[in-house]
Amino acid sequence: MDKPYVVGIDIGGQTSKIGVVDARGTVLRQSSIRSDTRKDVNLYINDLCEAVIKLANEVGGMEKVRGIGVGAPNGNYYTGTIENAPNLTWGGENVIPFAKLVSDKLGVRVVLTNDANAAAVGEMTYGAARGMRNFILITLGTGVGSGIVINGEVVYGHDGFAGELGHTAAVRYNGRQCNCGKKGCIEAYASAIGVARTAREWLEMTDEPSALREVFEELTSKDVYEAAVGGDALAKRVFEYTGKKLGESFSDFVAFSAPEAIVLFGGLARSGDLLLKPVEDSMNANLMPLWKNKIKIIFSQLKESDAAILGASALAW
Amino acid sequence: MDKPYVVGIDIGGQTSKIGVVDARGTVLRQSSIRSDTRKDVNLYINDLCEAVIKLANEVGGMEKVRGIGVGAPNGNYYTGTIENAPNLTWGGENVIPFAKLVSDKLGVRVVLTNDANAAAVGEMTYGAARGMRNFILITLGTGVGSGIVINGEVVYGHDGFAGELGHTAAVRYNGRQCNCGKKGCIEAYASAIGVARTAREWLEMTDEPSALREVFEELTSKDVYEAAVGGDALAKRVFEYTGKKLGESFSDFVAFSAPEAIVLFGGLARSGDLLLKPVEDSMNANLMPLWKNKIKIIFSQLKESDAAILGASALAW
Repeated sequence: MDKPYVVGIDIGGQTSKIGVVDARGTVLRQSSIRSDTRKDVNLYINDLCEAVIKLANEVGGMEKVRGIGVGAPNGNYYTGTIENAPNLTWGGENVIPFAKLVSDKLGVRVVLTNDANAAAVGEMTYGAARGMRNFILITLGTGVGSGIVINGEVVYGHDGFAGELGHTAAVRYNGRQCNCGKKGCIEAYASAIGVARTAREWLEMTDEPSALREVFEELTSKDVYEAAVGGDALAKRVFEYTGKKLGESFSDFVAFSAPEAIVLFGGLARSGDLLLKPVEDSMNANLMPLWKNKIKIIFSQLKESDAAILGASALAW
Repeated sequence: MDKPYVVGIDIGGQTSKIGVVDARGTVLRQSSIRSDTRKDVNLYINDLCEAVIKLANEVGGMEKVRGIGVGAPNGNYYTGTIENAPNLTWGGENVIPFAKLVSDKLGVRVVLTNDANAAAVGEMTYGAARGMRNFILITLGTGVGSGIVINGEVVYGHDGFAGELGHTAAVRYNGRQCNCGKKGCIEAYASAIGVARTAREWLEMTDEPSALREVFEELTSKDVYEAAVGGDALAKRVFEYTGKKLGESFSDFVAFSAPEAIVLFGGLARSGDLLLKPVEDSMNANLMPLWKNKIKIIFSQLKESDAAILGASALAW
């Protein structure tokens, strides 16, 4: 095969991960660049293409690369654009012809989708959702994203933007401001940022002793996790609350597509039972009788970086 | 053709409609029976089969009938069962092998699905959704149902029960009790029964003058509609409130499958602009920027009885 490799790119709010992948799904080479140091998308794309060329050169050069698959927030599969991505420093209120810009620079075909959709493809092909034809992948990272698979196909919808479950309502009235411009989105509660925000709000509201008071200024979801594992009561309640909110939302997602499972993916999914238990309890409490205790909630079985890179790369074959 | 006809059956909470349909989608004969006079499903099926045979005899007998398609609440396409249907007097907490029972009695193949899924197929084949590959049909009748079409296919999900959007949360806490056992479902607010309930609650809460006070005891959504058309301020606000709730829910449905349109179907959909305007305003207020003012809300273009019968019958070819 003249061009035996594809490149998978996973664009996150902070980091962009790049991998060279062979036909068997092995990530041969991997690197990353920062996503958030540029305000101008052209400068970011310069950085990105440089990193892709450097990585490709380790396996024989760009002429060995058949295509590039990109997973990006607000990425549109149909048009190859990134549109109004609030979590990207160079996203803003623009329609960026991302696939075309990269393709023009590197001279290979570029296919682009939502980062969560890419992860769903990765999980279906190599991970926890192998053999499943109906599942929903939820990414719990900086934001909350989703990839919906129905009858073995990712749902793109009429316009290419289906599966924005992070921006469905967790709270209808007086909900938290979300980055997307709406209020009350589940992303504002169950993302890494949402978890830290819950902890900070609760610390401010009461005098309850908590290990988290020491890190208040720079409190992250990781701090909350570590405090909860250490037995901190407030931190544990933050996870219970987050899980409750997620479970409520999941019960609505199930009513939509009746999936076999919901796959949790991303940084916060590493919280394990601390999150899983309240999610399951809350989802089952809010499901119609016909679904109670029948919908599996499982964790991604791929390394986070691999899943997104593999998923993105699978688009490029 | 030896067997030139199919029979479509639409089972509603109160009435079951039966039609004999030819290959061009013409409803040749139509009749109906009550759904709600029997507690025992076998007695209901006796009534139903009698009515089917009677109708078939008008076009040459059951030997002319190739198959029967049934649209029923909680109908499962995969298994042919009706499961835990709270709005059917003979539904209750049972798994009824409905397709088999009817098939055994009449000696023809019986295919069954959710009544709303059947309506979606009817609408896609003959109605407002012709040519659309991604849309959501919402039935606003005794209950609130939905048929979700993605890439031209009805979504059945892993277990055959996908598309229960009437039982997603309109209100998360202290919501109204719904027939399904949950609280706060959109069905408890935006069904015909929900509309009447809103009116009754508001009449009880205040002394505001309203034409609806005269019919309080037996108040129906039709009364509310007529009062609103007549200028009754409270009745108009009931429609605004109902539309607001529906629009909020629709914004979440759009985030799921990014449909080209949402098609309103059923008794309450006949309320026209009285409902449409607040639904559109509320949906757009709650959509992510990328979808604002881009999702069409349209009314069914088929007579209600025809759509469900045609949709159900289409399953039987």
